[in-house]
Amino acid sequence: MKIALVGGTGDIGSGFAVRWSSHYEVIIGSRKEEKAQESAAEIRQYLRSLGIDPMISGADNKTAINESDVVVLCVPPENVATVTADLRDFYSDQIVVTPVVPMVRTKYFEYRPPDEGCAAFLVKRSLPESVRIVSAFHTIPAQSLKEHGKILRFDVPICGDDNASKSVVAEMCRKINNLRPLDAGPLSVSHQVEGLTPLLLNIARLNKMRRVGIQFVQEE
Amino acid sequence: MKIALVGGTGDIGSGFAVRWSSHYEVIIGSRKEEKAQESAAEIRQYLRSLGIDPMISGADNKTAINESDVVVLCVPPENVATVTADLRDFYSDQIVVTPVVPMVRTKYFEYRPPDEGCAAFLVKRSLPESVRIVSAFHTIPAQSLKEHGKILRFDVPICGDDNASKSVVAEMCRKINNLRPLDAGPLSVSHQVEGLTPLLLNIARLNKMRRVGIQFVQEE
Repeated sequence: MKIALVGGTGDIGSGFAVRWSSHYEVIIGSRKEEKAQESAAEIRQYLRSLGIDPMISGADNKTAINESDVVVLCVPPENVATVTADLRDFYSDQIVVTPVVPMVRTKYFEYRPPDEGCAAFLVKRSLPESVRIVSAFHTIPAQSLKEHGKILRFDVPICGDDNASKSVVAEMCRKINNLRPLDAGPLSVSHQVEGLTPLLLNIARLNKMRRVGIQFVQEE
Repeated sequence: MKIALVGGTGDIGSGFAVRWSSHYEVIIGSRKEEKAQESAAEIRQYLRSLGIDPMISGADNKTAINESDVVVLCVPPENVATVTADLRDFYSDQIVVTPVVPMVRTKYFEYRPPDEGCAAFLVKRSLPESVRIVSAFHTIPAQSLKEHGKILRFDVPICGDDNASKSVVAEMCRKINNLRPLDAGPLSVSHQVEGLTPLLLNIARLNKMRRVGIQFVQEE
Protein backbone atom coordinates (compact mmCIF):
# COMPACT_ATOMS: atom_id res chain seq x y z
CA MET A 1 0.00 0.00 0.00
CA LYS A 2 1.30 3.43 -0.98
CA ILE A 3 0.56 6.46 1.17
CA ALA A 4 0.96 10.00 -0.18
CA LEU A 5 1.51 12.70 2.45
CA VAL A 6 0.54 15.75 0.44
CA GLY A 7 1.96 18.99 1.76
CA GLY A 8 3.96 16.52 3.82
CA THR A 9 7.18 18.40 4.54
CA GLY A 10 5.88 20.02 7.75
CA ASP A 11 5.65 18.62 11.26
CA ILE A 12 2.54 16.50 10.86
CA GLY A 13 3.68 15.06 7.49
CA SER A 14 7.14 14.26 8.85
CA GLY A 15 5.53 12.68 11.88
CA PHE A 16 3.38 10.34 9.80
CA ALA A 17 6.36 9.52 7.54
CA VAL A 18 8.46 8.55 10.58
CA ARG A 19 5.71 6.26 11.86
CA TRP A 20 4.45 4.71 8.63
CA SER A 21 7.49 4.29 6.34
CA SER A 22 8.57 1.06 8.02
CA HIS A 23 5.11 -0.46 7.36
CA TYR A 24 3.97 1.14 4.12
CA GLU A 25 5.52 2.75 1.05
CA VAL A 26 5.38 6.47 1.88
CA ILE A 27 5.65 9.29 -0.66
CA ILE A 28 6.15 12.75 0.81
CA GLY A 29 4.52 15.28 -1.49
CA SER A 30 5.27 18.97 -1.86
CA ARG A 31 4.68 21.66 -4.44
CA LYS A 32 8.44 21.41 -5.06
CA GLU A 33 9.75 17.93 -5.79
CA GLU A 34 13.21 18.85 -4.49
CA LYS A 35 11.88 19.96 -1.10
CA ALA A 36 9.95 16.68 -0.77
CA GLN A 37 13.06 14.68 -1.63
CA GLU A 38 15.13 16.56 0.95
CA SER A 39 12.49 15.87 3.57
CA ALA A 40 12.39 12.17 2.63
CA ALA A 41 16.20 12.00 2.81
CA GLU A 42 16.22 13.51 6.31
CA ILE A 43 13.64 11.03 7.58
CA ARG A 44 15.48 8.12 5.90
CA GLN A 45 18.67 9.19 7.66
CA TYR A 46 16.90 9.55 11.03
CA LEU A 47 15.28 6.12 10.79
CA ARG A 48 18.50 4.43 9.55
CA SER A 49 20.24 5.85 12.63
CA LEU A 50 17.70 3.81 14.60
CA GLY A 51 18.44 0.68 12.55
CA ILE A 52 15.26 0.94 10.47
CA ASP A 53 15.32 0.80 6.66
CA PRO A 54 12.24 2.78 5.60
CA MET A 55 10.30 2.80 2.32
CA ILE A 56 10.21 6.52 1.70
CA SER A 57 10.55 8.87 -1.26
CA GLY A 58 9.71 12.44 -2.21
CA ALA A 59 7.76 13.74 -5.19
CA ASP A 60 5.66 16.71 -6.27
CA ASN A 61 2.11 16.57 -4.91
CA LYS A 62 0.62 15.58 -8.30
CA THR A 63 2.84 12.53 -8.66
CA ALA A 64 2.41 11.59 -5.01
CA ILE A 65 -1.38 11.65 -5.29
CA ASN A 66 -1.46 9.93 -8.67
CA GLU A 67 0.68 7.00 -7.52
CA SER A 68 -0.89 6.38 -4.11
CA ASP A 69 -3.67 4.26 -2.62
CA VAL A 70 -4.15 6.56 0.37
CA VAL A 71 -3.71 10.35 0.40
CA VAL A 72 -3.28 12.14 3.73
CA LEU A 73 -3.87 15.91 3.64
CA CYS A 74 -1.01 17.26 5.78
CA VAL A 75 -1.75 20.94 5.33
CA PRO A 76 -3.12 23.81 7.38
CA PRO A 77 -6.82 24.52 6.70
CA GLU A 78 -6.10 27.60 4.61
CA ASN A 79 -4.15 25.43 2.13
CA VAL A 80 -6.68 22.64 1.71
CA ALA A 81 -7.88 24.00 -1.63
CA THR A 82 -4.37 23.75 -3.12
CA VAL A 83 -4.14 20.02 -2.37
CA THR A 84 -7.73 19.17 -3.28
CA ALA A 85 -9.53 21.30 -5.88
CA ASP A 86 -6.32 22.43 -7.62
CA LEU A 87 -5.08 18.83 -7.91
CA ARG A 88 -8.46 17.23 -8.51
CA ASP A 89 -7.43 15.66 -11.82
CA PHE A 90 -4.80 13.52 -10.11
CA TYR A 91 -7.29 11.81 -7.81
CA SER A 92 -9.07 8.66 -8.95
CA ASP A 93 -10.29 6.20 -6.30
CA GLN A 94 -7.90 6.87 -3.42
CA ILE A 95 -8.80 6.89 0.23
CA VAL A 96 -8.36 10.53 1.26
CA VAL A 97 -7.63 11.10 4.95
CA THR A 98 -8.34 14.56 6.38
CA PRO A 99 -6.92 15.53 9.76
CA VAL A 100 -7.71 19.15 8.87
CA VAL A 101 -9.16 21.40 11.59
CA PRO A 102 -10.37 24.87 10.63
CA MET A 103 -9.96 27.06 13.70
CA VAL A 104 -9.14 30.59 14.74
CA ARG A 105 -7.01 31.74 17.61
CA THR A 106 -7.96 34.95 19.30
CA LYS A 107 -7.46 34.71 23.04
CA TYR A 108 -8.63 31.09 22.83
CA PHE A 109 -8.74 28.51 20.10
CA GLU A 110 -12.15 28.17 18.52
CA TYR A 111 -13.47 25.74 15.92
CA ARG A 112 -14.66 27.64 12.84
CA PRO A 113 -16.15 25.18 10.33
CA PRO A 114 -16.53 26.19 6.67
CA ASP A 115 -19.95 26.69 5.04
CA GLU A 116 -20.01 22.97 4.17
CA GLY A 117 -20.31 22.21 7.92
CA CYS A 118 -16.88 20.64 8.47
CA ALA A 119 -13.49 20.36 6.81
CA ALA A 120 -14.29 16.80 5.71
CA PHE A 121 -17.30 18.01 3.69
CA LEU A 122 -15.23 20.79 2.12
CA VAL A 123 -12.70 18.13 1.01
CA LYS A 124 -15.48 15.86 -0.25
CA ARG A 125 -17.00 18.65 -2.32
CA SER A 126 -13.62 19.48 -3.89
CA LEU A 127 -12.75 15.95 -5.07
CA PRO A 128 -14.20 13.38 -7.51
CA GLU A 129 -17.06 11.26 -6.15
CA SER A 130 -14.94 8.15 -6.64
CA VAL A 131 -12.57 8.96 -3.77
CA ARG A 132 -13.49 7.86 -0.25
CA ILE A 133 -13.05 10.45 2.49
CA VAL A 134 -12.02 9.48 6.01
CA SER A 135 -11.72 12.07 8.80
CA ALA A 136 -9.07 11.12 11.39
CA PHE A 137 -5.89 12.02 13.31
CA HIS A 138 -7.05 15.49 14.42
CA THR A 139 -5.85 15.22 18.00
CA ILE A 140 -2.37 13.71 17.76
CA PRO A 141 0.48 16.07 18.76
CA ALA A 142 2.70 16.34 15.63
CA GLN A 143 5.90 16.74 17.64
CA SER A 144 5.25 13.43 19.38
CA LEU A 145 4.73 11.60 16.09
CA LYS A 146 8.19 12.68 14.95
CA GLU A 147 9.90 10.75 17.76
CA HIS A 148 9.79 7.20 16.42
CA GLY A 149 9.85 5.31 19.71
CA LYS A 150 7.48 7.57 21.64
CA ILE A 151 4.43 5.68 22.94
CA LEU A 152 1.20 7.62 22.33
CA ARG A 153 -1.58 6.32 24.55
CA PHE A 154 -4.31 8.28 22.80
CA ASP A 155 -7.59 7.46 21.08
CA VAL A 156 -8.28 8.41 17.46
CA PRO A 157 -11.96 8.94 16.60
CA ILE A 158 -12.56 8.16 12.91
CA CYS A 159 -15.47 9.37 10.76
CA GLY A 160 -16.40 8.21 7.28
CA ASP A 161 -19.15 6.78 5.12
CA ASP A 162 -17.25 3.77 3.72
CA ASN A 163 -16.49 1.02 6.23
CA ALA A 164 -13.72 -0.61 4.20
CA SER A 165 -11.82 2.70 4.03
CA LYS A 166 -12.33 3.27 7.74
CA SER A 167 -10.82 -0.16 8.42
CA VAL A 168 -7.74 0.72 6.35
CA VAL A 169 -7.30 3.95 8.31
CA ALA A 170 -7.90 2.13 11.61
CA GLU A 171 -5.05 -0.23 10.70
CA MET A 172 -2.79 2.75 9.83
CA CYS A 173 -3.67 4.08 13.26
CA ARG A 174 -2.73 0.82 15.02
CA LYS A 175 0.68 0.93 13.32
CA ILE A 176 1.48 3.99 15.50
CA ASN A 177 2.18 2.70 19.04
CA ASN A 178 -0.20 2.82 20.95
CA LEU A 179 -2.92 4.77 19.20
CA ARG A 180 -6.38 3.22 19.40
CA PRO A 181 -8.81 3.81 16.53
CA LEU A 182 -12.48 4.31 17.44
CA ASP A 183 -15.39 4.49 15.04
CA ALA A 184 -17.01 7.91 15.60
CA GLY A 185 -19.73 7.65 12.93
CA PRO A 186 -20.35 8.96 9.42
CA LEU A 187 -18.69 11.95 7.77
CA SER A 188 -21.72 14.07 8.70
CA VAL A 189 -20.58 14.11 12.35
CA SER A 190 -16.95 14.92 11.54
CA HIS A 191 -17.52 18.41 13.02
CA GLN A 192 -17.80 16.72 16.44
CA VAL A 193 -14.32 15.29 16.03
CA GLU A 194 -12.71 18.31 14.35
CA GLY A 195 -13.93 20.45 17.27
CA LEU A 196 -11.80 18.41 19.69
CA THR A 197 -8.57 20.06 18.58
CA PRO A 198 -9.27 23.62 19.79
CA LEU A 199 -10.77 22.12 22.96
CA LEU A 200 -7.54 20.19 23.61
CA LEU A 201 -5.37 23.20 22.86
CA ASN A 202 -7.34 25.40 25.29
CA ILE A 203 -7.29 22.74 28.01
CA ALA A 204 -3.55 22.23 27.59
CA ARG A 205 -2.84 25.93 27.89
CA LEU A 206 -5.27 26.72 30.73
CA ASN A 207 -4.31 23.72 32.85
CA LYS A 208 -0.57 23.80 32.15
CA MET A 209 -0.50 20.44 30.39
CA ARG A 210 1.76 19.48 27.46
CA ARG A 211 1.06 17.41 24.34
CA VAL A 212 -2.45 16.55 25.42
CA GLY A 213 -4.50 13.83 23.74
CA ILE A 214 -7.84 12.27 24.42
CA GLN A 215 -9.03 8.93 25.78
CA PHE A 216 -12.58 7.61 25.81
CA VAL A 217 -12.84 5.54 28.95
CA GLN A 218 -15.49 3.24 30.33
CA GLU A 219 -16.62 3.40 33.89
CA GLU A 220 -14.53 1.09 36.06
CA MET B 1 -23.94 26.62 50.23
CA LYS B 2 -27.36 25.72 48.83
CA ILE B 3 -27.68 23.98 45.48
CA ALA B 4 -31.00 23.91 43.60
CA LEU B 5 -31.40 21.07 41.11
CA VAL B 6 -34.17 22.49 38.96
CA GLY B 7 -36.10 19.88 37.05
CA GLY B 8 -34.15 17.64 39.37
CA THR B 9 -36.42 14.59 39.72
CA GLY B 10 -34.92 12.77 36.70
CA ASP B 11 -31.76 10.68 36.43
CA ILE B 12 -29.23 13.49 36.22
CA GLY B 13 -30.84 15.48 39.05
CA SER B 14 -31.07 12.40 41.28
CA GLY B 15 -27.46 11.62 40.47
CA PHE B 16 -26.24 15.05 41.55
CA ALA B 17 -28.42 14.91 44.68
CA VAL B 18 -26.90 11.56 45.66
CA ARG B 19 -23.38 12.93 45.26
CA TRP B 20 -23.75 16.43 46.66
CA SER B 21 -26.26 16.18 49.55
CA SER B 22 -23.62 14.97 52.02
CA HIS B 23 -21.47 18.05 51.25
CA TYR B 24 -23.98 20.81 50.46
CA GLU B 25 -27.59 21.63 51.21
CA VAL B 26 -29.45 20.30 48.16
CA ILE B 27 -32.95 21.35 47.09
CA ILE B 28 -34.55 19.21 44.43
CA GLY B 29 -36.85 21.38 42.34
CA SER B 30 -39.81 20.33 40.23
CA ARG B 31 -42.86 21.99 38.76
CA LYS B 32 -44.77 20.04 41.39
CA GLU B 33 -43.56 20.46 44.96
CA GLU B 34 -44.94 17.05 45.94
CA LYS B 35 -42.99 15.24 43.24
CA ALA B 36 -39.79 17.00 44.35
CA GLN B 37 -40.40 16.01 47.96
CA GLU B 38 -41.00 12.38 47.00
CA SER B 39 -37.77 12.36 45.06
CA ALA B 40 -35.88 13.92 48.00
CA ALA B 41 -37.38 11.33 50.36
CA GLU B 42 -36.24 8.46 48.12
CA ILE B 43 -32.69 9.77 47.98
CA ARG B 44 -32.65 10.41 51.74
CA GLN B 45 -33.73 6.82 52.31
CA TYR B 46 -31.10 5.46 49.88
CA LEU B 47 -28.28 7.46 51.49
CA ARG B 48 -29.41 6.62 55.04
CA SER B 49 -29.23 2.94 54.06
CA LEU B 50 -25.55 3.62 53.38
CA GLY B 51 -25.10 5.31 56.75
CA ILE B 52 -25.10 8.84 55.33
CA ASP B 53 -27.35 11.58 56.71
CA PRO B 54 -27.90 13.93 53.77
CA MET B 55 -29.01 17.58 53.65
CA ILE B 56 -31.77 17.27 51.10
CA SER B 57 -35.26 18.65 50.57
CA GLY B 58 -37.78 19.12 47.78
CA ALA B 59 -39.57 22.27 46.61
CA ASP B 60 -41.20 23.76 43.56
CA ASN B 61 -38.66 25.15 41.06
CA LYS B 62 -39.42 28.78 41.98
CA THR B 63 -38.67 28.26 45.66
CA ALA B 64 -35.63 26.11 44.90
CA ILE B 65 -34.11 28.79 42.65
CA ASN B 66 -35.02 31.65 44.96
CA GLU B 67 -33.39 30.06 48.01
CA SER B 68 -30.19 28.77 46.39
CA ASP B 69 -26.64 29.97 45.76
CA VAL B 70 -26.09 27.63 42.83
CA VAL B 71 -28.74 26.49 40.34
CA VAL B 72 -28.09 23.41 38.20
CA LEU B 73 -30.32 23.03 35.15
CA CYS B 74 -31.21 19.33 35.18
CA VAL B 75 -33.56 19.33 32.22
CA PRO B 76 -33.56 18.11 28.64
CA PRO B 77 -32.73 20.87 26.10
CA GLU B 78 -36.35 21.25 24.97
CA ASN B 79 -37.31 22.23 28.54
CA VAL B 80 -34.60 24.81 29.17
CA ALA B 81 -36.99 27.71 28.54
CA THR B 82 -39.33 26.54 31.33
CA VAL B 83 -36.55 26.66 33.95
CA THR B 84 -34.90 29.85 32.69
CA ALA B 85 -37.05 32.45 30.90
CA ASP B 86 -40.31 31.34 32.58
CA LEU B 87 -38.70 31.53 36.05
CA ARG B 88 -36.49 34.53 35.35
CA ASP B 89 -37.96 36.58 38.21
CA PHE B 90 -36.71 34.10 40.80
CA TYR B 91 -33.08 34.45 39.78
CA SER B 92 -30.89 37.13 41.36
CA ASP B 93 -27.14 36.55 41.54
CA GLN B 94 -26.90 32.75 41.57
CA ILE B 95 -24.29 30.70 39.81
CA VAL B 96 -26.22 28.86 37.11
CA VAL B 97 -24.69 25.60 35.93
CA THR B 98 -25.75 24.28 32.53
CA PRO B 99 -24.97 20.68 31.58
CA VAL B 100 -27.52 21.05 28.76
CA VAL B 101 -26.67 19.54 25.36
CA PRO B 102 -28.98 20.27 22.43
CA MET B 103 -28.75 17.30 20.09
CA VAL B 104 -30.78 15.26 17.67
CA ARG B 105 -30.75 11.52 17.19
CA THR B 106 -31.39 10.21 13.73
CA LYS B 107 -29.21 7.22 12.99
CA TYR B 108 -26.44 8.93 14.99
CA PHE B 109 -26.34 11.56 17.69
CA GLU B 110 -25.53 15.01 16.37
CA TYR B 111 -24.92 18.28 18.18
CA ARG B 112 -27.48 20.87 17.09
CA PRO B 113 -26.73 24.20 18.80
CA PRO B 114 -29.43 26.87 19.03
CA ASP B 115 -29.20 30.18 17.14
CA GLU B 116 -27.28 31.65 20.08
CA GLY B 117 -24.37 29.32 19.23
CA CYS B 118 -24.56 27.01 22.24
CA ALA B 119 -26.94 26.07 25.06
CA ALA B 120 -24.92 28.16 27.52
CA PHE B 121 -25.55 31.32 25.48
CA LEU B 122 -29.27 30.51 25.24
CA VAL B 123 -29.36 30.24 29.05
CA LYS B 124 -27.38 33.45 29.42
CA ARG B 125 -29.77 35.34 27.15
CA SER B 126 -32.80 34.07 29.11
CA LEU B 127 -31.62 35.13 32.58
CA PRO B 128 -30.77 38.41 34.37
CA GLU B 129 -27.26 39.76 33.73
CA SER B 130 -26.50 39.42 37.44
CA VAL B 131 -26.36 35.60 37.35
CA ARG B 132 -23.09 33.91 36.44
CA ILE B 133 -23.30 31.06 33.93
CA VAL B 134 -20.99 28.06 34.10
CA SER B 135 -21.11 25.28 31.50
CA ALA B 136 -20.12 21.88 32.94
CA PHE B 137 -21.00 18.21 33.58
CA HIS B 138 -22.05 17.41 30.00
CA THR B 139 -20.25 14.09 29.74
CA ILE B 140 -20.98 12.31 33.02
CA PRO B 141 -23.20 9.23 32.70
CA ALA B 142 -26.28 9.96 34.88
CA GLN B 143 -26.77 6.32 35.87
CA SER B 144 -23.25 6.21 37.31
CA LEU B 145 -23.84 9.34 39.39
CA LYS B 146 -26.80 7.65 41.06
CA GLU B 147 -24.60 4.92 42.59
CA HIS B 148 -23.07 6.75 45.54
CA GLY B 149 -19.86 4.75 45.88
CA LYS B 150 -19.07 4.40 42.18
CA ILE B 151 -15.67 5.87 41.27
CA LEU B 152 -15.85 8.00 38.11
CA ARG B 153 -12.39 8.50 36.65
CA PHE B 154 -13.49 11.13 34.14
CA ASP B 155 -12.53 14.69 33.32
CA VAL B 156 -15.02 17.56 33.40
CA PRO B 157 -14.23 20.47 31.07
CA ILE B 158 -15.69 23.70 32.47
CA CYS B 159 -16.46 26.90 30.54
CA GLY B 160 -17.40 30.28 31.94
CA ASP B 161 -16.53 33.96 32.03
CA ASP B 162 -16.28 34.38 35.82
CA ASN B 163 -13.31 32.68 37.46
CA ALA B 164 -14.73 32.69 40.99
CA SER B 165 -17.86 30.84 39.79
CA LYS B 166 -15.75 28.37 37.84
CA SER B 167 -13.80 27.64 41.04
CA VAL B 168 -17.02 26.93 42.94
CA VAL B 169 -18.13 24.52 40.22
CA ALA B 170 -14.66 22.93 40.10
CA GLU B 171 -14.98 22.25 43.84
CA MET B 172 -18.47 20.74 43.33
CA CYS B 173 -16.85 18.55 40.70
CA ARG B 174 -14.08 17.36 43.07
CA LYS B 175 -16.75 16.33 45.59
CA ILE B 176 -17.77 13.57 43.16
CA ASN B 177 -15.08 10.84 43.34
CA ASN B 178 -12.90 10.98 41.20
CA LEU B 179 -14.03 13.59 38.73
CA ARG B 180 -11.31 16.05 37.69
CA PRO B 181 -12.34 19.59 36.73
CA LEU B 182 -10.46 21.21 33.85
CA ASP B 183 -10.71 24.82 32.73
CA ALA B 184 -11.86 24.72 29.09
CA GLY B 185 -12.09 28.48 28.49
CA PRO B 186 -14.79 31.16 28.33
CA LEU B 187 -18.49 30.61 27.69
CA SER B 188 -17.93 31.45 24.02
CA VAL B 189 -16.26 28.06 23.48
CA SER B 190 -18.93 26.09 25.36
CA HIS B 191 -20.05 24.63 22.00
CA GLN B 192 -16.75 22.71 21.92
CA VAL B 193 -17.64 21.04 25.22
CA GLU B 194 -21.36 20.54 24.55
CA GLY B 195 -20.43 18.76 21.30
CA LEU B 196 -18.60 16.07 23.28
CA THR B 197 -21.82 14.39 24.40
CA PRO B 198 -23.10 13.20 21.00
CA LEU B 199 -19.50 12.22 20.14
CA LEU B 200 -19.31 10.06 23.28
CA LEU B 201 -22.72 8.51 22.67
CA ASN B 202 -21.80 7.55 19.09
CA ILE B 203 -18.44 6.14 20.15
CA ALA B 204 -20.07 4.11 22.92
CA ARG B 205 -22.62 2.61 20.56
CA LEU B 206 -20.31 1.97 17.60
CA ASN B 207 -17.50 0.47 19.66
CA LYS B 208 -19.66 -1.51 22.11
CA MET B 209 -18.57 0.49 25.15
CA ARG B 210 -20.73 1.32 28.18
CA ARG B 211 -20.96 4.50 30.27
CA VAL B 212 -18.15 6.21 28.41
CA GLY B 213 -16.47 9.35 29.69
CA ILE B 214 -13.51 11.39 28.58
CA GLN B 215 -9.97 11.91 29.84
CA PHE B 216 -7.49 14.49 28.65
CA VAL B 217 -4.09 12.85 28.97
CA GLN B 218 -0.57 14.08 28.56
CA GLU B 219 2.01 12.21 26.59
CA GLU B 220 3.89 9.76 28.83
